[in-house]
Formats: sequence, structure tokens, C-alpha cells
Amino acid sequence: MTKNLNMDKVATPLKALLGDRFSLSNAVRQHHGEELTHFDICPPDAVAFPISTDEVSQIVKLCHAHDIPVIPYGAGTALEGHFLAVRGGITLDFSRMNQIITLHQQDMDCVVEAGVTREQLNQDLRDTGLFFPIDPGANATLGGMAATRASGTNAVRYGTMRENVIALKAVMADGTIITTSSRARKSAAGYDLTRLLIGSEGTLGIITEITVRLYGVPEAISAAVCPFNSLDGAVDTVVDVIQMGLPIARIELIDDLLVDIINRFSDLDYPCEPTLFMEFHGSETAVKEQAEMVEEIAQAYGGHGFRATRPEDRSKLWQARHDGFLSLRAAYPGKDFWVTDVCVPISQLAECIRQTRTDIQKADIVAPLVGHVGDGNFHLTIPYDKESPQEVEAIEQNDRLVKRALAMGGTSTGEHGIGLGKKKYMMQEHGPALDYMKMVKRALDPKNILNPGKIFDL
Amino acid sequence: MTKNLNMDKVATPLKALLGDRFSLSNAVRQHHGEELTHFDICPPDAVAFPISTDEVSQIVKLCHAHDIPVIPYGAGTALEGHFLAVRGGITLDFSRMNQIITLHQQDMDCVVEAGVTREQLNQDLRDTGLFFPIDPGANATLGGMAATRASGTNAVRYGTMRENVIALKAVMADGTIITTSSRARKSAAGYDLTRLLIGSEGTLGIITEITVRLYGVPEAISAAVCPFNSLDGAVDTVVDVIQMGLPIARIELIDDLLVDIINRFSDLDYPCEPTLFMEFHGSETAVKEQAEMVEEIAQAYGGHGFRATRPEDRSKLWQARHDGFLSLRAAYPGKDFWVTDVCVPISQLAECIRQTRTDIQKADIVAPLVGHVGDGNFHLTIPYDKESPQEVEAIEQNDRLVKRALAMGGTSTGEHGIGLGKKKYMMQEHGPALDYMKMVKRALDPKNILNPGKIFDL
Repeated sequence: MTKNLNMDKVATPLKALLGDRFSLSNAVRQHHGEELTHFDICPPDAVAFPISTDEVSQIVKLCHAHDIPVIPYGAGTALEGHFLAVRGGITLDFSRMNQIITLHQQDMDCVVEAGVTREQLNQDLRDTGLFFPIDPGANATLGGMAATRASGTNAVRYGTMRENVIALKAVMADGTIITTSSRARKSAAGYDLTRLLIGSEGTLGIITEITVRLYGVPEAISAAVCPFNSLDGAVDTVVDVIQMGLPIARIELIDDLLVDIINRFSDLDYPCEPTLFMEFHGSETAVKEQAEMVEEIAQAYGGHGFRATRPEDRSKLWQARHDGFLSLRAAYPGKDFWVTDVCVPISQLAECIRQTRTDIQKADIVAPLVGHVGDGNFHLTIPYDKESPQEVEAIEQNDRLVKRALAMGGTSTGEHGIGLGKKKYMMQEHGPALDYMKMVKRALDPKNILNPGKIFDL
Repeated sequence: MTKNLNMDKVATPLKALLGDRFSLSNAVRQHHGEELTHFDICPPDAVAFPISTDEVSQIVKLCHAHDIPVIPYGAGTALEGHFLAVRGGITLDFSRMNQIITLHQQDMDCVVEAGVTREQLNQDLRDTGLFFPIDPGANATLGGMAATRASGTNAVRYGTMRENVIALKAVMADGTIITTSSRARKSAAGYDLTRLLIGSEGTLGIITEITVRLYGVPEAISAAVCPFNSLDGAVDTVVDVIQMGLPIARIELIDDLLVDIINRFSDLDYPCEPTLFMEFHGSETAVKEQAEMVEEIAQAYGGHGFRATRPEDRSKLWQARHDGFLSLRAAYPGKDFWVTDVCVPISQLAECIRQTRTDIQKADIVAPLVGHVGDGNFHLTIPYDKESPQEVEAIEQNDRLVKRALAMGGTSTGEHGIGLGKKKYMMQEHGPALDYMKMVKRALDPKNILNPGKIFDL
């Protein structure tokens, strides 16, 4: 049974167009309606697996004619309900659009289809001396990362998808295919449609190709780990490092609780204290200098046992960091997980984290804290049981955290996006600017078929 | 005599609101309708000098009610007819909104009114250890720089206004005041209205406040000059430097013709050859390393006499570079000037410049070439006499240059913007994407009162 009464009008032509790549099967639909976090399953009416921008355009044209929602789906790693089919419709799964189209080695850019994942891209680049730095942890697709304005561990040095996408190809609400920009590194020619689509979560256009910036693999890379006597000390270290303008590539905070969980999951033996995971990029000299300067700052704030990681252990370190959420799922089997993130000006970071920790302690709940703290961005993950009224109270911490971040001049989400989960904060965060976002949405998607119900309600 | 029949309906209330800060005087209007380049004078019907965002809002509300165009005006340094009042209306001169509102030293950002100029900002920051890097040459206002997505000599390292504006306050078409973003360094909370307004040339909203990123003054700064046997050699050097990922802060190309003109204007004695002006930022070691590497590359391409500039001469060097246009005006008194810029992928830069030079030689005209070549961005300035049919032919070079850049995967303007001058290339550059820009414009400014006639016609 489909939610959308017009589905039968498009099922036949879509079957004719896509053959096996159009599915009404219950299992496929369920799979595309389930997120990793606490959201209830919400499957689409059908799933299409396009292989080209042109096919996407044809599908969207049909859906547009019959008022059927279209929902883009990448690797399924969204955390705020981004791809849940709250109004039914057709999910476009980009897994078959995973070609790296053109590498422009000299221009240090690359054109990829939306279904290419970041690990796939870097694997493909491994002999070129170039790499793509944006790393949100999960092996997300570039299309999904562009749509949610993703960032992650390297953003403190290399920026986010906002800074690293040069151009997009996208299918708009009526099926029109557009290219948002040339490959020039900068342009002053008209409105920045690239940045308008980045972070629009599939609500303004369906991204099918992305041109991304690449970077030369640094001459030297080193990593380090440093435990601290207190969370405050770790945070204060980060603030000093950023304020000194040190070009650190990664500086990640993991609280004592999560260090313990990661140790168990990844068979590591880091001291169970608030810890910074760091990485330095540059020349041999620069990397050494940076590490020494950070160690000196850390010592002043109760950092002890600053430990450079052997090259062979570096991947293991970041794998363990990226497996943070998996570790949590393993540590709390059967639980639901409320995952949240905020981002505040760096001057507010220490106080924001302090107040958050105090709150969590008072509430007597478990809520490990981890973050890309160099950007002022951090995450809480709250294991709880949806069926337990008592445990559901724990997620009130999300609400308190978001309001705290907004009060401190920050944002309700640094990188996870709004999706369904944070719609209720949009008015508080944006005030009258929210109306202008809605005007743009209505203008570009008057029938509201592109991932409807996400970011805001019209 | 005003162009707009409704002017008399707003003149009285605006006079009441603004007193002397509302002017209908011919001299004031003429001044606000004259650009530095070849465009004919096109004055507004009146000029207002607001002192606050609230006043801007009140003015726009009145103009909205009576369908009167509103045109923002910064330092008057636009080059493509951006502030010419082609449909009459009221120019808002931001010279009285020149307060630096808040410096957030720890967050390395600063909130300024739209009329603050970049030199004023850096002067104000001089004792803080921080600086604002974006430098389009002219002492433009931050509001104007945001509205045109300006960049300039430092963009190769620090990015453009696109990357360096954190948030904007703006007055929208109906007078509503919005803030586009929090001060967090990154956010995934909804559409990127900041980037939508940047580069919109006053057509979507009137920017009244800008929050910009600041950077720590580098430990060491050094500059260098290197003449080359050929323009090709200079360009090839730039391409190699960029492709090696050297973090050079500035790398500017000046052709032999312009070196000669600059020498005469600024009393310098650089060899009259194609020349690179460069600047290096970093630690003492890093700056030395970078300069040595660039010198080595330059030598391989016929660079000779690579000369580090003494610190006391560094400002003089950049002043001379920035005075390029003034030097030209002095060298060709009485001439009109057609100023144009394009930007291409760096792999196309050498070929684009070669073809352009050949073209210019064939046409037997004067057209000095200068550029922020590290971004793939360069400029031609063509002195000519508007009244001479023969000389007017010279400006056909602009058309050939733009089409060449577009054919090479570049953009019709890297930093000057579209204004009036490059509207005719918008369709060729953007294709169907142009329709979506127009949809956004119509949605946000349905009465088309915000700087109408610029970027595109509706």
C-alpha cells in the first residue's frame, strides 16, 4: 500500500524506464526508510536506482507531473531523518551513480557522480599525489555530503563542503538539469547557486554531479594523542591552538567515557581521560614545529603523556575515532541513540562544554561527548530506550544543548543538518531570515516535491 | 527632473526622516551616477545617507510602497556599472555607516557596518595582531566587497569574500531586516543566505553589516619581484607554484607594458619585462623556504633577477601594484577605459593569456594585462576614445576574451562582477541555471526595486 495516490500513474512508466532498477519491494523500501539514529522507520513508496543525470531528470519530470515527492539517498548515513519519506514518494538511490568522471590533475579538482563515496574517491586518487580532505567519519557519498554541507575532522584546516565544492550538476523540481558554476576557482558572475544547493538537503534540487577541490598530499603527516586531567584543560588547549592560528589539520576531543568505549571496541589502551586526537600536515619541519607547540600548550593545561603516533598506527587511530558511533552501539546494545551536534564561536566553546557536562551529570544520564572542537563543533550521543518514559527524559539534554548554543551565538547544527530533527529550532536560530529561505523554496519547488518536510514546513 | 514619477511621494517623508542626509542636489546625484570606467553617467533621482540599519529599513519600506528603485553605494569603486541608476530611484550611500561594531579578538572575527573600508578596518586592527586579508586593490567598502564577491591579491591564499564572510545583516526588498547566520565558523542549519547575498550586487537585499573572518598577522612576511624573458615563462611559473601547492600569499602578473607605466607613475625602476610581484606569509623558515622554491621554479622558465624586497619597500611595491589603474589613467589622459576580467582553470591560464596577447597584437591596440594569476584570474584594461569609431573597435577584445574564457571552462568575471557590463554573457555562462537565478530574484524582490537592471534583466 503506497502513501501517495498518484504512485500507480508513474509506476508503469518508471518500470519501463528503469526495469529492475525500479523497486516496489517491501524490503528495499524499508531499507531506504531507516536511519541509524532514533527516528522511526518511514519508507518511501518506491525506490529508483538511476544510472545517469538524464534518468534522474526523467524520473523527476514524471514525479513533478504527478505531484510525487522525490527523495535523494546516498549512503544512508544521515543522522537527522534527512531521507525519511514522511510524505511518501520515490527515493532515488545514487549507489549506481558512482563513477569518477574526470580528474583534472593540473587544476587539482575532480568531477564525480553523486554516489561516489569519500573513501572511494581517495582510493581512486591514491597514485596521484592528491587527496580530498573532507571527512565526516562515515563513508558518506559526495552527493549526500554536499546536500548536508558536511564537514568533519579535517574541516579546521581544509574547510567544509561549502568551501570545497567548485560546481554542481543538479536536477531541479521540474526536471531541468543545471550546472551551477564553471570550474574556475572563483567567479563573480551572478548568484551562488552552488552554495545555495549545498546544505539544502535535497529540498531545492537533486545533486547528480559534484566538482570538488583536491589538495596535494602533504610532504609529512603526523598524528598525536594527548590525555588531560580535565575536559576543561583539553578544551582550553584547543582554544589556544586555534587562536594562535596554528594550521593544525585535525584536533578532535573525546571525553573519558568515550575513550573507554573506543578502547574496548577497537582494542586500544588509551588512558581513560579526556583526550585530544590530533594530526599535523606540512613539511617535515612544519609538522615537527606544530606538534611541539601544541605539546607545550597542552602541558600548561594539564595535558600529560603527549604521544606522537607511529605512522603505522595513524590509520588505526582515525579508524577508532570514526568508529565512535559503532563503539557506542556495541556498548549499549538494544538502545536507541539520540545523536546531536552544535557549533559555537570558539570563545564560547569551553563554557558551552562545561555547562553541558554539568547538566548531564545533574541529569544522571550517559551522554558521551566528542567533537571537531577546532571549529567549535561538538556532538553528544545519548543512548536511551524509546519505550522508557524515564529514559526518554534524557533526550531533553538535546534541547538544552541546542538552546545553549544558540544563546551563545552559535548554531543548532554544525554539520549534521536540520532534516526532521532540528526543524523546531529554525525559527529561533534564523528569525525573519527563515521566511526568505521559504520564499526560495517556494520559488524553486512550487509543488514541494523535493524532499518535502525537511528543514522547515512551508 | 526625476526619472521616477513616484519620487515626489517619498521625498517629503524621507526629508523628514533624514534631514540633510537626503539630497536631491544635482551635484550629489551626478557624483553617485559616475563610474571610473567607460559607462556613461547615470545618476539616481536622489541620494540618502543612512546612519543605521533601521534607517535603511525605513527608506526601503517607503521605496517598496511606491515602487522606487534602491541602489546601494559603497566607495564608488565598482567597474561594471553596478551602481548606475538605470531606472532612477534612490541611491543609499553608506559612507556614514562606517563603524566597526564589535571585534571578537578570541574568535578572530569582526562585525562592521557596510561602509567601513578595508583600509580603515586594517588600520583599526593594527594593534591587535589580526588583519583582514581580502584586498581588491581599491579601498572598497566591506559592503561593496561582499555584494560583488570581491577578492584581489591575497585570494590565492586566503580566499575571497565568499570564504571570509561569516554572517550578514541585510535589509530585504520590503524593508525586513534579517541576519543570515550565527557567528559559528560553520553551520548546517538551512539555506546559505550569506552566500546567496554575497555576489548578488544589491539585487536581493541591501547589506548593512558584515561579520568577517580575521587572521593572525604572520610571524614573517616577505615580498619579491621577478622579471621574465617572456609572459609565457611568468605564467608557467605561476601554474607550477599553484600545482605544487605552495601556500604563496600573493602572486601577481604585470605585463611589460604595465611595468613601464607603473614605473613612470610610481617612480620605480623595475625592468620593463613581464614581471611577477609576490608575497610570502608564514614563519621565518617557511617564508624563506617558499621564496627559494619559487625562485628555483622561476629560473627554469626564464625568470631572472629574482629580487627579495626590503621590508620598507614592500608597501611601496603593493601601492604601485594597486595604483595600476591610476597609472593607466595618467598615462592615457583623456581616454575612456574598458576594464575587464576573466578567470579560467589554472591549466588553461597560459593558453588563455597567450591567445589573448596574440589577439591584442593582431588588433594593434594597447591593452595592458595584469592579474591575480594564482587564481587563474586576469584583467585587461583597454584605453580608447568612445567618440572614435576606430578606437571603439578595440573593445571587441573584451568580447573575444570573455568568450575564450567561457570556452575554456572559465567564468566571464573572476571578481569585478556582472553589473551592466557583462549581462550579455550570463546566458552563455549559466545556460538554464540562469532561469533559477531569476526565480530567486523574483521571489525575494517581486517588485524589482533592488538595484534593478543589474546582473540580468527579468
